[in-house]
Amino acid sequence: MTVARIYITLRKGILDPQGQAVAGALRGLGFDGVEDARQGKVIELKLKDGAGTAETKTQLEKMCQQLLANPVMEDYRVEMIG
Amino acid sequence: MTVARIYITLRKGILDPQGQAVAGALRGLGFDGVEDARQGKVIELKLKDGAGTAETKTQLEKMCQQLLANPVMEDYRVEMIG
Repeated sequence: MTVARIYITLRKGILDPQGQAVAGALRGLGFDGVEDARQGKVIELKLKDGAGTAETKTQLEKMCQQLLANPVMEDYRVEMIG
Repeated sequence: MTVARIYITLRKGILDPQGQAVAGALRGLGFDGVEDARQGKVIELKLKDGAGTAETKTQLEKMCQQLLANPVMEDYRVEMIG
């Protein structure tokens, strides 16, 4: 089985209210060193073996483009693990 | 400035309906190789310099325990970048 991790984060310059709420809450708890926080998603996929590595990477790229990320607002990074 | 990334994922054995929805949607789009998907969060924190690395790690650990993760249901991993 192949495992892939996809990290999806908002692009720079896109407002991130969830991240701002996290930063505010941390400061409220006394963690004064927090300047900024941004929140994103990780999706861990288990894939059937069979397709080669190159083919799997192409498939993962397509999954991100078609469903997992919104390429207008979000950046994504694909990482394959074993 | 120090940047830290915190990865928060549901523990093994905890039902992940969001992940199941992602897996189902990917299969529906024709990505038949998808066996399972699990979804988690990434939080990227920008921290003021000043505290040493060891102190910062302790602070990050506390942030996870007190606010960012639910240690009963979630695992977290802290990664410091530059």
